[in-house]
Amino acid sequence: MHIPTVAWEGDLPGTLVALDQTRLPRDAVALRLRTVEEVYDAILRLVIRGAPAIGVGGGYGVVIGLQGLATRTPGADAIRELVSETDRVAAYLKSSRPTAVNLSWAVDRVADVVRTRAAKGATVREAVAAGLEAARALEADDRDRCARMGEHGAALLKDGDVVYTHCNAGALATAGIGTALGVVYTAHKQGKRVSVFADETRPLLQGARLTAWELQREGVPVTVVSDGMAASVMRSQRVSAVVVGADRIARNGDTANKIGTCSLAIVAKHFGVPFWVVAPLSTFDRGIADGSGIPIEMRSSEELTEMAGVRVAPEGVGAFNPAFDVTPAALIAGIVTEVGIASPPTPETVDALFRKGEGA
Amino acid sequence: MHIPTVAWEGDLPGTLVALDQTRLPRDAVALRLRTVEEVYDAILRLVIRGAPAIGVGGGYGVVIGLQGLATRTPGADAIRELVSETDRVAAYLKSSRPTAVNLSWAVDRVADVVRTRAAKGATVREAVAAGLEAARALEADDRDRCARMGEHGAALLKDGDVVYTHCNAGALATAGIGTALGVVYTAHKQGKRVSVFADETRPLLQGARLTAWELQREGVPVTVVSDGMAASVMRSQRVSAVVVGADRIARNGDTANKIGTCSLAIVAKHFGVPFWVVAPLSTFDRGIADGSGIPIEMRSSEELTEMAGVRVAPEGVGAFNPAFDVTPAALIAGIVTEVGIASPPTPETVDALFRKGEGA
Repeated sequence: MHIPTVAWEGDLPGTLVALDQTRLPRDAVALRLRTVEEVYDAILRLVIRGAPAIGVGGGYGVVIGLQGLATRTPGADAIRELVSETDRVAAYLKSSRPTAVNLSWAVDRVADVVRTRAAKGATVREAVAAGLEAARALEADDRDRCARMGEHGAALLKDGDVVYTHCNAGALATAGIGTALGVVYTAHKQGKRVSVFADETRPLLQGARLTAWELQREGVPVTVVSDGMAASVMRSQRVSAVVVGADRIARNGDTANKIGTCSLAIVAKHFGVPFWVVAPLSTFDRGIADGSGIPIEMRSSEELTEMAGVRVAPEGVGAFNPAFDVTPAALIAGIVTEVGIASPPTPETVDALFRKGEGA
Repeated sequence: MHIPTVAWEGDLPGTLVALDQTRLPRDAVALRLRTVEEVYDAILRLVIRGAPAIGVGGGYGVVIGLQGLATRTPGADAIRELVSETDRVAAYLKSSRPTAVNLSWAVDRVADVVRTRAAKGATVREAVAAGLEAARALEADDRDRCARMGEHGAALLKDGDVVYTHCNAGALATAGIGTALGVVYTAHKQGKRVSVFADETRPLLQGARLTAWELQREGVPVTVVSDGMAASVMRSQRVSAVVVGADRIARNGDTANKIGTCSLAIVAKHFGVPFWVVAPLSTFDRGIADGSGIPIEMRSSEELTEMAGVRVAPEGVGAFNPAFDVTPAALIAGIVTEVGIASPPTPETVDALFRKGEGA
C-alpha cells in the first residue's frame, strides 16, 4: 500500500506534491506546491493534515521557501540572507497549526541543518540541498516509524477484533501506513480479521471521508457512525479496542488530539474498552508537564454553522469550535510508539520510552 | 411565546397545519396536511418531530384519516366501516415512528373515543367530531403539561447557570413551550440568566437547526457545538446541568432518546454534572421493565453517508444509524414530569409519580 500523502518531485528546485484531502473521497487530486505561502495554506486548509504528515510537509516547506535563494551569487551576503530567510520561513510555517508539535519539530530540524551547513562554510545551494536531504530523511523516517508502531500495536489485536477509531490517523495522516490505522493494517496483513467503526468526526468529517476511504481501499471492513453513537456502538457491537492518533502529548501522557477524542475516551472507560493512543515519539512535548499546558487551536465557527457552504444554524448564532481536546492519561490504556508502549502512560513510562528511543 | 408546531385549522372537515421543521432555520413554512398518508409522511420525514408533538400530530391524524367518512349516509354499514377504518388508520399512523410511545398513546386515545362513541349509537359524523374534540384536548393538555414541567424543572436552575442540551426538546417538539427547553424558558421568564450550549445532533442537526433557532427567537443566549465537544465544554465552560427530552422511558427510568444521549450522559457523569430528563408521563411505558425492552428505530444510512444530497463517505461504505439510544437510569439525576420529579429514577419513584398523576 502506498498513498502519496506528501512527496517531493524533482531535485532542486523541486515541487512538493500533496494529495488534496479536502476533496476526498470524491476526487483524488494532487496539488503541486511551489511557494512557502502555498505550503502554509495547504497545511492551514487541511489539504495536508495529520500530525506526522504536516511534519513531513513542513520540512519540505522549508526547502520550498529557500530554494529560490540557491541561484544567488555566492558570498557572505547570500549566506546572511539565507540564515535570516530560514528563520522567517521556519517561524511562518510553524504558525500554520499551533497544536501539532511534530510540525515545529520537523521544521526546526530541517532549518537547523540549513543553518549549520551555512555556518560551516557551505554555499547557499549546498546548504539548501542539505535541507532537502534532511526533509527526505524525515519522510523515510516517518515511514519506518509507522511500520514499527504498526508492529507494536498489532500485538494488542487478535483475530475477530472490532476496533473503533476517531478522525483519521491513517496513511493520509503520515508518509507511511499511518499511526492508529497502521496498527489495523499490520494486524490485517498478519491475517487477523479486524473490522472498524469509524466515527465521522465533526466538523470536518475526516472519519467519514478519509478513514472510510483508505480502509475500504485496503479491504478492511469499515462502518461509519456519528460521533454521538459511541455508547450505542460499544453497548451493542462487541468493540475490542479504541485506537486514535495524537497531535501533542505532555510528559505525563495527557494527549491532545482531534476534538471529540476525550468524550470518546470517557465512553470507552465506562464500557471497559481499552483506549490506545498511537503516535511517534516526535508527538511528545516533554517540556510540558501535563495537558493543561498544551495550546488548543480554535477554528472558525463556520465549520459548524455552515455545511457545504449552506448555513445550517440560524444567522447570528455563534459556535464554539476548538480543533482539539485533551484526554487525561488516566483514561488511556497505553501509548503505542515506534520503540514500544507506555502502559499505563506516566512520566516514568514515557521517559523510559525516550531512553529506549535514544539507545536504539 | 407560541410556535405553531402542529395546529388544527377549520372544523370538520379540517386541515392539520404543521411547521415544516426539515426547512428550518432557513424557511419557516407551514404544510397543510389533508390525507392520512400526508400525516404519516410528515411524521416519518420529521416535518413533525419530538415525541409530544408527534403524539398531538398523530391524534389529529386519526381525524384526518376518518373525516372523509363523515359525509356517508348514516346507518349500521357506515358505522362498521368507521370502526374498521379507525383500526386501520390507527395502526398505520403508529407504524411511522416505532420508538415514540406518545404517538401510540395519543393515536389510541383518539381512536378509542371514536370507537366508544360509535358503539354508543352516535352517527359517523358525531363519532369523528368527538375524536376531533379528543385530539384538541390532547393538544391543550400537552401545552398545560409543558408549563407544569417547566415549573418543576426551573426550580433546579439558578441565576447564571449554563445548561447543555442535545437534539431539540423544545417548543418545536411539543404543542407547548417544550420539555427540556421549557425548563430553560421558565427559568428565563423567572428572571434567571441562563445560557445554553446546544450540540448540533448528527445526523439531522436538530440542535444546530431547531434548538438554536427557538432559543435565539426567545432571547436565550445559545452556542452551537459538535456532539463530540461535550467533554471539552464540560471541562472548560462551567456547565451546571444537562437537560434533554425523551422518546420512551421504561418503568425503572431507563430512557430512550435521540442517538447521542447516552454518550452525553456518560460524559456528564464523568464531570459530575447532573443529567436531567424532562418528559410528560405519557412518555413512560411501564409495561417495559427496563431499557433492554425498548425497540430502537433504525434509519437510513444515507442520513450519515450523504450531506445535503452530496455523498461524503466513499461509495460502498455502509453506516450504522440507530435513531435512538438508551441511557440507563443510573446515569440520570432525575426525570422531571408534569407532576414532579423522580430523583433518582427507580421503579418506586416512577410509580409514585403515577400515583400522584392519577390523584391530580
